[in-house]
Amino acid sequence: MHASAFVHRNYIHHPPIFSSCRRVCFASRLRSTIRMSLKEDGPSVAVVGVTGAVGQEFLQVLSDRDFPYRSISMLASRRSAGHHLSFEGREYEIEELVPESFDDVDIALFSAGGSVSRDMAPIAVQRGAFVVDNSSAFRMDPRVPLVIPEVNPDAMAHISLRKRGKEGAIIANPNCSTIICLMAATPLHRHAKVVRMVVSTYQAASGAGAAAMEELKLQTREVLDGKQPTCKIFKQQYAFNLFSHNAPILSNGYNEEEMKLVKETRKIWDDLSVKVTATCIRVPVMRAHAESINLQFEKSMDEATARQILEEAAGLVVIDDRSSNLFPTPLEVSNKDDVAVGRIRQDLSQEGNHGLDIFVCGDQIRKGAALNAVQIAEKLL
Amino acid sequence: MHASAFVHRNYIHHPPIFSSCRRVCFASRLRSTIRMSLKEDGPSVAVVGVTGAVGQEFLQVLSDRDFPYRSISMLASRRSAGHHLSFEGREYEIEELVPESFDDVDIALFSAGGSVSRDMAPIAVQRGAFVVDNSSAFRMDPRVPLVIPEVNPDAMAHISLRKRGKEGAIIANPNCSTIICLMAATPLHRHAKVVRMVVSTYQAASGAGAAAMEELKLQTREVLDGKQPTCKIFKQQYAFNLFSHNAPILSNGYNEEEMKLVKETRKIWDDLSVKVTATCIRVPVMRAHAESINLQFEKSMDEATARQILEEAAGLVVIDDRSSNLFPTPLEVSNKDDVAVGRIRQDLSQEGNHGLDIFVCGDQIRKGAALNAVQIAEKLL
Repeated sequence: MHASAFVHRNYIHHPPIFSSCRRVCFASRLRSTIRMSLKEDGPSVAVVGVTGAVGQEFLQVLSDRDFPYRSISMLASRRSAGHHLSFEGREYEIEELVPESFDDVDIALFSAGGSVSRDMAPIAVQRGAFVVDNSSAFRMDPRVPLVIPEVNPDAMAHISLRKRGKEGAIIANPNCSTIICLMAATPLHRHAKVVRMVVSTYQAASGAGAAAMEELKLQTREVLDGKQPTCKIFKQQYAFNLFSHNAPILSNGYNEEEMKLVKETRKIWDDLSVKVTATCIRVPVMRAHAESINLQFEKSMDEATARQILEEAAGLVVIDDRSSNLFPTPLEVSNKDDVAVGRIRQDLSQEGNHGLDIFVCGDQIRKGAALNAVQIAEKLL
Repeated sequence: MHASAFVHRNYIHHPPIFSSCRRVCFASRLRSTIRMSLKEDGPSVAVVGVTGAVGQEFLQVLSDRDFPYRSISMLASRRSAGHHLSFEGREYEIEELVPESFDDVDIALFSAGGSVSRDMAPIAVQRGAFVVDNSSAFRMDPRVPLVIPEVNPDAMAHISLRKRGKEGAIIANPNCSTIICLMAATPLHRHAKVVRMVVSTYQAASGAGAAAMEELKLQTREVLDGKQPTCKIFKQQYAFNLFSHNAPILSNGYNEEEMKLVKETRKIWDDLSVKVTATCIRVPVMRAHAESINLQFEKSMDEATARQILEEAAGLVVIDDRSSNLFPTPLEVSNKDDVAVGRIRQDLSQEGNHGLDIFVCGDQIRKGAALNAVQIAEKLL
């Protein structure tokens, strides 16, 4: 850890001009008192893309988990620089992201898109920072660990703030759909080895950012009022509709979102033999993804064992009340840390006890992005 | 065909009292002129459950397809009896459904729920009517054909108005999810034999009736206005949410909706060996279902062949524009006859060319119910 002096980076000691605070109205979600997480011996943290949906959630999660930071830099594009935001009872000025932003930064949480990560994460590393990157830029880079802390913490066991040299390192946050899927599939995989997985997703607006969530709301009101829906973020009507995920389609007919599930699963499980297919669909839901997952196991996996394994797994909650017909829903898991799993049943279409169907829901912004990244940052301490 | 006299059943010659017409406001969707489909030598038709979403669509489809009826009885529960509705430029009085309703009826289109079908369809048959039943009451009865006209017309080849004796017969309309799935899967099955199918559905409000569609609209407005959503039809919030299909869960953990897909596929394909698993999910969409379908074939089935087969199949339209990222959506197929299929691609998780992923959308009320039933009725002529 850097033995630097006690510095509140970007901390403004005088009352801020609140009227200039735009797009950062999450103060009400945070505790307003000055928190104990401001630790002299904690790391200095930078949040890159702080005005975005995931950026804001980074702050929320840091606060919720009492992350022991020494200082925080609030970094964004030039457009947002100079605006103020309040966090844990202090006021911060948003700074433009430049190479010098990473001087004296221990941990940088990135969520500002792939091109920003590709440009700036290596610079941050050169300047000594550990980057937890939420973009897809480095996920498949063999030198970069791709980590879900409950699933493959060992992949980053060699990286720690205590053991760093002159340079830092990048740790990649998996794609939201992969995290939510593997939170449920991995405990079962450990027990009976998943050989094949067929996934169909029901993905929320939040995956396309805060503007997409706003567009869904706007469109929905327009449709209810009999008006033509505004289509800016997506090129087709989203309200009361669903469509194939808007990620580009590759030559094999899969879209990039689907291939993330295929490839990231192999890397995270360190198992090139696991077979995965996925169909990713965007549904008119705000901030939590759902996934219907069909599993094929090498060994026997009966339903009762599966339920017990899932009930005991960290970060997972089983909602599987058949008599009341209550199972996971996106709304139920919204703003929550745990991924929910239900509809646990032996797959009728597979011989013996080698198949299982499950249905999972997880908050896309939280465990699908910000929470997982902050959990990675905690592992660095 | 009955050689009965020319009778306009329930046809009111005098101007109706429009103020008493409730719940039947679909006149605007129908052509207002008197149509040529009123044929002296056509069958007399009864529509059972005429005030429901499917009942109203029966009329729409009969009109759209110039179904050559001699007369139509508009039948419903006592609650709706006495109300008037207009159809093809004529005014009809809705009658209470009683055994005598079927005297002199050639074809009865039923969509008034399973218990009404169980009680009244056998009575209709005894009185000489051919019943096309949209409920699940007789679907798995080995004596009753379960028919999608494009898929298994031969199952009802022995039944015809021209060949009837004293009694009529029942033909069952499959469940909406089954019809929409098999419209796309069957042409492929004929070519390479489907041995296993993994289906995840995205089901619209219409499957739970007109009141559910209204509740979705109401809830959505309430949520946008920051109010508590009204939950009467469904016990949980539907607006901006999704949930496991509300059909009862069976002892094997599947819900009844899912088991319909499993069992009806076997019966329609006359193939007890086909393995099917399904996860049925209700999404906040109005009237068209979507389904993500993973297929496993006995023989080789390459993507190009699959596309050609689907393009040539009756009742199916291929929407599969990878460069523009345009694929089937529920909105696109709403109020349309054809089922749309897209995202056609070789399944990466299966060896050789034995797997395929597809995504289908179909209007739940139309091909999923009313259109299929009227097509069956046409086969009876």
